Amino acid sequence: MLASARRSRSTRPLPYPVRFAVLGGGSFGLALASVLGKKSIPVTILVRKEDVAEHINLHHRHPTYLSDISLAPTIRATTIPEEALNDASFIIHAVPVQYSRKFLEDIAPHVPKNTPIISTSKVSYHCWFSSLCYSFLFVGRLNLILSPSLPSCPPPLQGIETGTLCMMQDILLETLGPNRETAYLSGPSFAREIALGLVTAVVAASESEALANEICDIMGCNYFRVFTSTDVVGVEVGGAVKNVIAIAAGMCEGLGLGTNAMAALVTRGCNEMQRLALSLGARPTTLTGLSGVGDTFGTCFGPLSRNRNLGVRLGKGEKLEDILGSSTEVAEGHATAFSLVQLIEKTNRAYRRELEFPIIYGVKEILEGKRTPAEGLRDLMAMPVRVEMWNL
Amino acid sequence: MLASARRSRSTRPLPYPVRFAVLGGGSFGLALASVLGKKSIPVTILVRKEDVAEHINLHHRHPTYLSDISLAPTIRATTIPEEALNDASFIIHAVPVQYSRKFLEDIAPHVPKNTPIISTSKVSYHCWFSSLCYSFLFVGRLNLILSPSLPSCPPPLQGIETGTLCMMQDILLETLGPNRETAYLSGPSFAREIALGLVTAVVAASESEALANEICDIMGCNYFRVFTSTDVVGVEVGGAVKNVIAIAAGMCEGLGLGTNAMAALVTRGCNEMQRLALSLGARPTTLTGLSGVGDTFGTCFGPLSRNRNLGVRLGKGEKLEDILGSSTEVAEGHATAFSLVQLIEKTNRAYRRELEFPIIYGVKEILEGKRTPAEGLRDLMAMPVRVEMWNL
Repeated sequence: MLASARRSRSTRPLPYPVRFAVLGGGSFGLALASVLGKKSIPVTILVRKEDVAEHINLHHRHPTYLSDISLAPTIRATTIPEEALNDASFIIHAVPVQYSRKFLEDIAPHVPKNTPIISTSKVSYHCWFSSLCYSFLFVGRLNLILSPSLPSCPPPLQGIETGTLCMMQDILLETLGPNRETAYLSGPSFAREIALGLVTAVVAASESEALANEICDIMGCNYFRVFTSTDVVGVEVGGAVKNVIAIAAGMCEGLGLGTNAMAALVTRGCNEMQRLALSLGARPTTLTGLSGVGDTFGTCFGPLSRNRNLGVRLGKGEKLEDILGSSTEVAEGHATAFSLVQLIEKTNRAYRRELEFPIIYGVKEILEGKRTPAEGLRDLMAMPVRVEMWNL
Repeated sequence: MLASARRSRSTRPLPYPVRFAVLGGGSFGLALASVLGKKSIPVTILVRKEDVAEHINLHHRHPTYLSDISLAPTIRATTIPEEALNDASFIIHAVPVQYSRKFLEDIAPHVPKNTPIISTSKVSYHCWFSSLCYSFLFVGRLNLILSPSLPSCPPPLQGIETGTLCMMQDILLETLGPNRETAYLSGPSFAREIALGLVTAVVAASESEALANEICDIMGCNYFRVFTSTDVVGVEVGGAVKNVIAIAAGMCEGLGLGTNAMAALVTRGCNEMQRLALSLGARPTTLTGLSGVGDTFGTCFGPLSRNRNLGVRLGKGEKLEDILGSSTEVAEGHATAFSLVQLIEKTNRAYRRELEFPIIYGVKEILEGKRTPAEGLRDLMAMPVRVEMWNL
């Protein structure tokens, strides 16, 4: 399930000048484009709607997302895949995991053979209830490029594809071929702060160390600090689990359980993240870094997290349906909790083991309505004590 | 310097009924007393002032600290060491590290031979400028019990004694004898929340596993969850370093650098904590638990941390002298930063190595006035990138 074909060191010659294609005009794609734009690197953003492309090209800002932040004139937008992809040196994939397979299958013919993909699972602004519309729109429209930033798209999943339980690495390799170099950006990185030029540190994980180093050199600058790693699984698992922990932390806050309880819950959540990652082949130290503990810090305590906000509202007694209905935004952690439980049960069965993840399971059961946030958190807090078991 | 005399499994018979002495009537001592009180365990708090003892005995609350929270009637206070100590089954030491040596030397004759000490470095409400008064008061007054909660005491140090660079374990063993069983409580645990009965999880670390288990059983309850560990050094180092990280996180906030930057800084701070602990003989996993990452979560992001607040005010441009002068509270991290740098330099020299701790050093230099918070944080953010080095 988790593809692990080892990449050899890159010998790919870089086209000159370097040019990036960004797939998806959501906040995070725009934020990364803005970083490259400030370095005068040409970027073409592939968006779905002609009027959005025109607006970006004319006004150098997106009409909806981060619309108060102007983009460098080297950033262009188009709705035509060939135009964005043909001579791209790097492709940034900023499309939610959940639609990535179909999306990538559709654009695969236009993706140059040797161009590496830099995947980021940071997505934003989705409408849960429009998934049916999305399915209808997509069928038979090969050239339709779906912007992940538009409300008319299905519920997002950060990190794990529903049904197949694949992570982005698997989806990329299955749709674009097994010999393609891929990298995965993660870390505490709210899009708005990046676009404002505030200091942000991320990890670029790739099985190709050469690609990770290239990304570090080309994308990095004085405020966008790119560290490298070869632990793709660790980085992907961290990105998925942290959103579920953030929902739990938010519920803690909404219920007024205090800082002590929240800090304890988040710490135990990070331990679940580490254990899960380790069980899937990651290195435990990865999860103590930016893509694990770091991203969890930002997501659980920063004011910008949708997942935490979902938890806070649930903790305060709002109904899940009302929260989802009142917002065009959906927290990735909502769907991820369900997929993670499926993934854990699948791997537990496969390896005949019984690893337990009470926080991930607890959040899922609260989201299912099987228990209230107060009941669920009470059970989580009644954690069995004795040796502080960080049984990695 | 770090005593590591291995304790054998305890065979000490417990006096019946169990009775606790709490040394120091500060917020944390009171909070732990309240936990025991709710379990109907008799507690005697040793305080300095007769009127404080009388107030507690009459009104079942401290006149100054957590004064809105009533204590169980089984909690008594006294100013007479013998009365508190003579038949105590356990002694909770809630006196700041900085005064602990002198304090313990003075009460040593009254401490029963086999009674274990449970140390907590949680201290509160100190006045930086009154250290001279303190020295004056203490000299020659063997029976003077100094409450750590009173403003008339010297600048507190969490975890490391100025000059000797000893941690609490060394001080306890040197003053009360090498054969005494000791344990160390740590974790995200704001005193007010404990006293209010909000869920809190802590670690009791002791080289005697039997003692740690006893503490878990006797002090633990449905809202005060006590995990156990045998890694005393790890727990002590975590408790010291987290306050320095919190000052850095606060400066980040005060300077408006954003959540991404703060999360990255805290993550790197946790890595410094792990590396330092490891270099002093701790187990790295301890620092991923409640006493490391967990306590850092609470301290950096909770609203109750004096260390974070000190950083916020520094970041907003206030002068250190003005902050210290305007408050009777002093953040432990202030003095700890200086002691940690000395400790690092001492161990680097001893082991002929050059371990680097940019955040600890950076905070110290800002506190010394060698650079402004903006300059210091800018340098910290210009972290060299490449492989995400968690070089434990």
